[in-house]
Parts: sequence; C-alpha cells; structure tokens
Amino acid sequence: MSLYSGLSQEQLQAQYQEVKQQYDEFKARNMHLNMSRGKPSTAQLDMSLDIFDSVNALNGYKAKDGTDCRNYGNLTGLDECKTIFAQSLGVQNDNIIVCGNSSLNIMFDYISQCMTNGAGGEPWMLQGPIKFICPVPGYDRHFGICEYFNIEMVNVPMLESGPDMDKVEELIKDSSVKGMFCVPKYSNPLGITFSDETVRRIASMKPAAKDFRIIWDNAYFVHDIVEDGDTLLNIFPEAEKNGNEDMIIEFASTSKISFPGAGVAVLAASENNIKQIAARMKRQIIGYDKINQLRHARVLKDGAGLREYMKRHAAILKPKFEIVVKSLDRDLTGLGIAEWTHPRGGYFVNLDVMNGCAKRVVELCAEAGVTLTGAGATYPYFKDPNDSNIRIAPSYPSLDELREAMNLITLAVRLAALEKLMDN
Amino acid sequence: MSLYSGLSQEQLQAQYQEVKQQYDEFKARNMHLNMSRGKPSTAQLDMSLDIFDSVNALNGYKAKDGTDCRNYGNLTGLDECKTIFAQSLGVQNDNIIVCGNSSLNIMFDYISQCMTNGAGGEPWMLQGPIKFICPVPGYDRHFGICEYFNIEMVNVPMLESGPDMDKVEELIKDSSVKGMFCVPKYSNPLGITFSDETVRRIASMKPAAKDFRIIWDNAYFVHDIVEDGDTLLNIFPEAEKNGNEDMIIEFASTSKISFPGAGVAVLAASENNIKQIAARMKRQIIGYDKINQLRHARVLKDGAGLREYMKRHAAILKPKFEIVVKSLDRDLTGLGIAEWTHPRGGYFVNLDVMNGCAKRVVELCAEAGVTLTGAGATYPYFKDPNDSNIRIAPSYPSLDELREAMNLITLAVRLAALEKLMDN
Repeated sequence: MSLYSGLSQEQLQAQYQEVKQQYDEFKARNMHLNMSRGKPSTAQLDMSLDIFDSVNALNGYKAKDGTDCRNYGNLTGLDECKTIFAQSLGVQNDNIIVCGNSSLNIMFDYISQCMTNGAGGEPWMLQGPIKFICPVPGYDRHFGICEYFNIEMVNVPMLESGPDMDKVEELIKDSSVKGMFCVPKYSNPLGITFSDETVRRIASMKPAAKDFRIIWDNAYFVHDIVEDGDTLLNIFPEAEKNGNEDMIIEFASTSKISFPGAGVAVLAASENNIKQIAARMKRQIIGYDKINQLRHARVLKDGAGLREYMKRHAAILKPKFEIVVKSLDRDLTGLGIAEWTHPRGGYFVNLDVMNGCAKRVVELCAEAGVTLTGAGATYPYFKDPNDSNIRIAPSYPSLDELREAMNLITLAVRLAALEKLMDN
Repeated sequence: MSLYSGLSQEQLQAQYQEVKQQYDEFKARNMHLNMSRGKPSTAQLDMSLDIFDSVNALNGYKAKDGTDCRNYGNLTGLDECKTIFAQSLGVQNDNIIVCGNSSLNIMFDYISQCMTNGAGGEPWMLQGPIKFICPVPGYDRHFGICEYFNIEMVNVPMLESGPDMDKVEELIKDSSVKGMFCVPKYSNPLGITFSDETVRRIASMKPAAKDFRIIWDNAYFVHDIVEDGDTLLNIFPEAEKNGNEDMIIEFASTSKISFPGAGVAVLAASENNIKQIAARMKRQIIGYDKINQLRHARVLKDGAGLREYMKRHAAILKPKFEIVVKSLDRDLTGLGIAEWTHPRGGYFVNLDVMNGCAKRVVELCAEAGVTLTGAGATYPYFKDPNDSNIRIAPSYPSLDELREAMNLITLAVRLAALEKLMDN
C-alpha cells in the first residue's frame, strides 16, 4: 500500500470506489455494537461470581476485627480491604479510605470539597475563576467534573513520557491554576505510563497556588495486558522528599477488577489529607457498604492475590487488543493517514486519523452500526483541535464482533481520508 | 411517689442517700452497653440474610429489563428497586433516584449541590451567609451537615403537631433562610408524626427565598412499632396544589429495613428536581451499586412486600420500646422531674429531665457503663438551652440489657434531680 498523499486525483477516485463499495457491503449487514466505553465483557464479569457468595449466612459477615459488617459504623473502611489497595499502591493502610463503588464519585466529591471548604486554604469557590491543567487527549469524565464546577480547563499535550512538563511547570506559575488531572499508568486513551522523570517532576512542583491538587487517577494500577507490564514510580515517597505529600490525592477502584456496577473504590492520601477528608466524611455518611468491602477482601485477599487475579483478566483481554492492533497494522500501515498505539495495559487503543477526519470516521462507523466513543470526547469541551483523535475500547465485544468492527473501522478511516483528499 | 419539688431538704437528703446507694451498687456491676445510636439489633439483621443470597450464580444478576447489573450503566437506579419506594412513598418511579447505602450521604450531597450550583438560582455559596430552620429537638447529623457548610441554624420548637408553623412562617420572610430539615414521621427523637395541617402548611409556604428547600427526611416511613401506625399525609400532591413541588426533596433508605451497612437509599423529587439532580449525577458517577439494588428488589418486592417485612421488625422492636416506656412510667411517674414519649414507631424514646440535668444524667450513666446519646446532641451546635433533653435508643440492646439499662437511667434521672434540688 502506498501513501495516500502521493496519489493522483484519479487514483484517489479509484481507491474511493473500492473502499466505498466495501463499506456499503458492511453497512448492509446491519451490525449493532456499542464500543463507546471501556466496559468489561461478560466473560470478565463471570470470573468474579465468587465475590457474591463470599458473604452470606454460611460464610458469615464479620470482619477480621469482629465488626458485624451489616450494621452501622466504620467510617474509613475495613482494614482487610484497605490492605489490598495499600499493598498494590505502595502506601500504608492508614493512607487509604475505602468508599462506595465509584472512584469517579470520590474524585467529584473531592473537587466538591475543595470548592466549598478548600484544600487547606480558602474555598476554591470564593477565590474567583480557577483553572485545571488537563493533559490531552484524556478522560472525558474528568473534563465533565471541571465543567460542572465551572473550572476552566487548560490543555497540555501528552508526550511519550507523560504530560509535557515544561508546559505544566509554566502554567503552575499562575495561582488561579488549582490542579491537574492525571491517569499516570496506561493513560486513558493513550496507554502511556508516566516516566520516572515525569513522576519526579510532578512530585517536586512548586505551584503558585498553595492549595494546588494533583488528581492522580490510577484507574489501571494493576491492569496489565502483557506479562511484564509497565511500572509506575510511586509518587508519594517522591512527593514527601519535596514536602509535597499533601498535593497528591490518588484514586483507584475494582470497577475493572470485579464489577463496574458493584465494586469498591478507594482514595490514597497523606496523613493531613486523610484527616481533612475523614472530617468531612463524618458529616457525610455513617459508613460505606462494608459488606461489599468484605466480599472483595475475602476473594482478592491482598496485593499478591490481586496481581494473580488480574492475570485472568489479561488472558481475556490480550487477544482482543491483539485483534485491534493487528487490524490497524494490517489495514492502515503505509497509508500515511493514521497512527495508533500498541498498549501494554489499560483499556484503550488510541487511534489518530487524518486531521479533520475523526468526527467523520465515528459517523461512518455509527451509520454502519458500530458506536465508537464520540469524536472530541478525549478533549475538554469536546473540542479536539485537530479533529483527529479516536478512542477504541476493545474489552466489551466478543472476538468475532471485534474482528468485524475493526474491519469496519479501518475502512471508515480510509474512506474519511479519501473523502478529505478528494475534497482538497 | 411524691413530687420532688414538695420535699423538704431533709427528705431530699434521705431520698438522695437511698438512690445514691442503689446507683453505686449498679456501678459496681461494671456494665458495658452502648445505647448512643439507633442501631438495629443482631436479631433484626439476621432477618435479612436472604438478601445476600438473592443475587449469585444460581439466581442470576439480571434486572427485569435484562440489564446485567454487574456492569456499567443505569444512572438513576433499577426500576424494580424504585417500585418499592415509589409505592411506599406515594410517588411515581420516575420521581425516584436510587443511590448508594446512605440517605445521609444523599442529603449531604444535595446541600452540596445547592452550595456550588444552586437550587434553580444562584449558588448558595455566592449569596452570602445563609440559614436553615431546624425543628428542635432534632437529628444531630442534620445539624452536622449545616455546620460543615457553615449554614447558620435557627431553632424552631416541635409541638405535638410538628414544627411550630407560626414561627416557621415568620422565619421564611427572610430571604437568607434557604431551607428546613424535617423528619416528618416518627421524628427523631420525639417520635411525632406531623399532622395533616402541618404538612399542608409546609406544602403551601411562600418563602422569600425562591430557592428554598425542604429536606423531607422520611427516615421512618414504614417503621411502625404498633399495629395501626401513624399516617403521614403525602406532601407532594399538597405541594403541587401550591406550585411548590420543587421545594420538597424527600429521602428514605433501607438502613433500618435491611442493613445499615449495606442497604440502599433513595431520594424522591419533582420532575424538575430529578432533572437537575440527574444532570449532576451524570458528571458524578456512572451508576450506583445495581447488584445491591437488585438484591433488595428481589427480597422486598414492592410496597406491600415492604409493609409485610416491617411487621417482623416491629415484632422485635415492640417489646424493647415497652420496656423503656414501662420503666419510665414505673420509676418516674409522679416525681415531677421528667417527661417522656410513648412512640408508636421510629427508633427513639424522648426523655426530658429536669432543666440543667441532662448532661449530668448522661454522665452518671456513662460512669456506670451505659453510653447514651450525648446530652445536647439533639440541638444545633450541641446547645440544648435547657440542658434537659435525652434521647433513648432501645433497638440495639437485648431485652435483659435494656431492663438493666433502664433501671440505671431512671436512677440517674432521680439522682441528678436530687443533686440539683439539694444544691438550690
């Protein structure tokens, strides 16, 4: 295959006819597949059915310390559930708070806390307009939180090593810049793990805002696809070296370990932050669902148990990622109209198509029955400046569905590029 | 027994010696009992063990509409779970949102929403100092929410019919008064159910603040102790007659139906409010724990199922409330040093002791090993102006423990009164 940019108008026409015909044949097949979100497949959910049976009349409902998990009490979560996350994230149990089933909810609530009661300083809401740094492309639901609270988002490009730290270090000189969202491991959607140097530079930042906060959304902390997955440098010891431990709040959950609809989520933070957050929680709730924490603790056991558990997810996910990447390699290599990632973990393959073509590709796929993540969703305010970024989520479809969908997607990428080139 | 106020100093001395000796004997027994909160007993929790087994590999994890409850999706909750609450509260399923395990959390979050994003108007946080009306005595955790958000609390006395509406109607002429907390049925701690007239007056209020909100915490909506329990007038149709349906947000939970540590909680609201709250939720969470919603739906079934279920709780609770009330009747009638309630539902017996004695009674009980709710907790800022109100929570102890505890409590009430009278 040759570079599309080198083709004459006649050659483009010929290519277009061929690709269009294949696309139309596809369309006639009336596929119906939603690939818009990083949703675990049924096979992955079936893996975790033990969790439902781990707490019942037979197995009992008492935590190791004797707590009857059915009743009131225990504000910050069961110790045995904290252990799983503490060991996996490299912090102490005292640095963990276990909440409900959604880390997004905890992040939202933490920003809400900063808005009304501050992050050690004045409430953010009373400080006039404030801003957050958003590495792009990124996670749409992070952007949604900022939008809800009317926090202006400033884009910073992601490099191979993580966010462009030169730009970040410049932006934090503005005291109205109050924070930054990061997915430091297998980032959504790029699959990039921040380099040790990036983690160290983040941990040693001296923002003008004394109440600056890093939302360290470690959503894919144990979510390797390959056997020797990426290693993320633990940010807390690095932050401590710089007296910056209060600047970081880390989040994780079992949404993609056990059940997205019925997992547990945690935050990890410094002693000061845990105190501040727990003081709020005391007014907010008597205790989160301890029975569900107990279910997870009994099945996942500890850090090592969790690592073993995740190997079974990897076995299900790996063939799916291979289909995506191999399809892209096979159909799009050498055409000069797209670039894509070969992620080693996480939930997404990032596909950058020709500038001005992402919306069209998503539209073409939708018209043929395959829903992709909305073009633009990976940028604040849904504004992808190049209209080029597409997020592919391989986890939910079956292998056969995924093969079909990838055939469609690569056709759509070619078709959109040809339309664009013929248009010029 | 005769009025303490009619006794001479010598008679008081004699009484004091007698009561003090009995109290000291009690103290020597080294009891250890925490009666500070309205905690269901183990027997009540054991009633609900079916809930744990209602969702598993055998019984499946799909909702009636086919939703796999293990996965992402479904923002406002499972329809079959909404049905239970809608039928019990007298609203439509569309007026219900099912959340996590804590109605306190939903109330906190709703106030938080009003603070940062307003209740249809400007964010409360940007409107300068604001106030809430708090009927007293009331629920300490409501006061805690106001304190956290720096909302000034204004006391309004509870009458036999509910809050003193003359006072309420006066207070709402101030546009900085933004809301009122109510426990309209079997109120905490008085056990009063608001009269139809009170509900109608609340529903027809015209507060100066257009963004005024009633936090209608219907915590004990199906929590009768006697067979023919109180009936609370449904506030929504009354509010609708006055175009006031957006002024009311209702809350309920299964904390005292299934498990305080692992139940489900809901809010009920007008179409406008549901829209506004759901728009926020879209940024806040992908969906609450649907599996736990399914567990509850399968066991509780519907409004009628819930009513039947609650009869079993009543059978456990009724003897406990009888012990409390009979002990008070037996030991304190005619002394002129205390008044108490004979509640028909809810979780508390309200005990008003001689002015200036509540703290001392709680202290005397604590010294003899029985922890009561802190004196003052039933008032904002922990300030009971008369130092007379004590909340008794009969649910958690066994019948034997409760008998013992009540013997201690009535002794302590007498001892504190005698100390006070001898002191004068």
